[in-house]
Amino acid sequence: MEGLACSLQDSICAALENVEGPTKGGGKRFKEDAWHRGSDGHGGGGRSRVLQGGRVFEKAGVNVSIVRGVLPPAAARQMRARGKAMGMRPGSDGLPFYAVGVSLVLHPRNPKAPTAHANFRMFEVREWDEEEGEERARWWYGGGADLTPAFLDEDDARHFHGTLKAACDRHGSELYPEFKRWCDRYFNNTHRASPGDDGERRGIGGVFFDDFGETSLPAKEAEAASAAGGGEAFAFVRDVGQSFLPAYLPVLVRHVGESFTPDDKRWQQIRRGRYVEFNLVHDRGTKFGLHTPGSRIESILVSLPETARWEYQAEEPPADSPAGRLMEALRRPRDWA
Amino acid sequence: MEGLACSLQDSICAALENVEGPTKGGGKRFKEDAWHRGSDGHGGGGRSRVLQGGRVFEKAGVNVSIVRGVLPPAAARQMRARGKAMGMRPGSDGLPFYAVGVSLVLHPRNPKAPTAHANFRMFEVREWDEEEGEERARWWYGGGADLTPAFLDEDDARHFHGTLKAACDRHGSELYPEFKRWCDRYFNNTHRASPGDDGERRGIGGVFFDDFGETSLPAKEAEAASAAGGGEAFAFVRDVGQSFLPAYLPVLVRHVGESFTPDDKRWQQIRRGRYVEFNLVHDRGTKFGLHTPGSRIESILVSLPETARWEYQAEEPPADSPAGRLMEALRRPRDWA
Repeated sequence: MEGLACSLQDSICAALENVEGPTKGGGKRFKEDAWHRGSDGHGGGGRSRVLQGGRVFEKAGVNVSIVRGVLPPAAARQMRARGKAMGMRPGSDGLPFYAVGVSLVLHPRNPKAPTAHANFRMFEVREWDEEEGEERARWWYGGGADLTPAFLDEDDARHFHGTLKAACDRHGSELYPEFKRWCDRYFNNTHRASPGDDGERRGIGGVFFDDFGETSLPAKEAEAASAAGGGEAFAFVRDVGQSFLPAYLPVLVRHVGESFTPDDKRWQQIRRGRYVEFNLVHDRGTKFGLHTPGSRIESILVSLPETARWEYQAEEPPADSPAGRLMEALRRPRDWA
Repeated sequence: MEGLACSLQDSICAALENVEGPTKGGGKRFKEDAWHRGSDGHGGGGRSRVLQGGRVFEKAGVNVSIVRGVLPPAAARQMRARGKAMGMRPGSDGLPFYAVGVSLVLHPRNPKAPTAHANFRMFEVREWDEEEGEERARWWYGGGADLTPAFLDEDDARHFHGTLKAACDRHGSELYPEFKRWCDRYFNNTHRASPGDDGERRGIGGVFFDDFGETSLPAKEAEAASAAGGGEAFAFVRDVGQSFLPAYLPVLVRHVGESFTPDDKRWQQIRRGRYVEFNLVHDRGTKFGLHTPGSRIESILVSLPETARWEYQAEEPPADSPAGRLMEALRRPRDWA
């Protein structure tokens, strides 16, 4: 998983820099900063790459993080409440865990080019098997990818969803429909609900999954399985992760040189305000980070756009315009693949 | 309280329009929209006044709201957890309540002119006195006023705090120090804490109070007391409310024509991002509204600035600059009056 996270970061950053174009023409490059905190096998580290003020991207962040630590008993109990009975080693002060993931948020400058987000992660705990008197590893995956345009382009929507669906389908035809619905349910500004709908989605979705492919093995067997290339769940995550670039890049490239009006820009800024609302009010990962002392706040909030706008009672765009059709798709999600 | 809320709205809007200047010179006017929802003595209404895209103000909202309803038993129990034992009338479906308040957020365009916020409110419940077999009214007040500059101007800070302190002192010398500290504690972006401090305050504070002047009287006596002009707690709220304009207006007027650089504007936009963070992540009123179905979302989010900005690892301003001195005052609040 560490290898996958790093290789996705490398390939995605390289492709985006390619779209940015040569630095002579104003194209910017990702700046990397490695960080770590803690010691003694506790704490974590990461490799943040951020491109700001570019020709194509206002702000793009692609981060890898690898965190090891001990879940305090209260947090371990909370996992149990999620249906995961976690046995602590007698005399230990908690449940050792290990989390690795790659996450990215890309905010292009051109209002016709959609924002994209993706995240792929693995979580592992070491629990104590009382009967066998040995340590077991239990791990599972989460992640997804979703698209947030300011204007609806149905070709984009079909291409983005279709590419993710093809990757999912290789692992079971039930996966895409379930994870597509999960995405629509999760990325929802419920506080923006109006009569006749249950909220305003952040974007036109994609896939979202969590608690996927849970596996439990004695610690030694787990290491052998990992060395042998991981199991079927990992192969699924890898395939979806590797489908992000083919899903997003053609959409980006199609719109990045498109002309736009000041009013298009204004509408993009208002939509970015909604992006901020979702991330600060609803997103579980962001909220968890903001309320966890010692979090690296800059990495958490790199997901926010460079600029955003809030108008009081901003006029609703005409229903038959690309902006109006987007609003309809955000309120009543459609099937695209 | 309704009279006070409406008269504060009138006087504050009139004074701000005066600063905006004549419409011929680009000065904008407040637009009023009255709203109501529900019926049968349930539900609520209000009078929202918003000025957008003005010469002096990017966005200014001054709202009065008056809400009547019934607190469901779960919400009534939560009040009890806050130390308020509330007896429900046998056979009733909850605790009748009545809330009235005025709230305002003013975001000037010029980065040298501080943002201001104030809010004054009363909350009343009707509970059942089992022993006497009669209804009792129980009410209390909350509110405050605070200042959010992007650059520290010590004269502004002393004037703003000094004016609020003078109003508080007329009702007891212990009030200002307590409510000043409460304000610093409440308007705190705790997620922005750095080594050596406990967070980054939203601004340079003012006063904040809640659960103030709780009074309980048989319903009929309460109406007589209200008709007679309210008690000492109301007089305090009125005095502080009426001190908002004298506290803020001179500060606004002093800076509204000041020259500024694009870099000053950029810094203001970054500070406005922090304002958004506080309101969406920490502010109790906003969170309550966002998670209450049927809330008037436009009124809740009128507090957000028109524009805001997030940069990854924005450079910290020099410690000896007005922006750097502000940061120091946000991290380690000082006494100003």
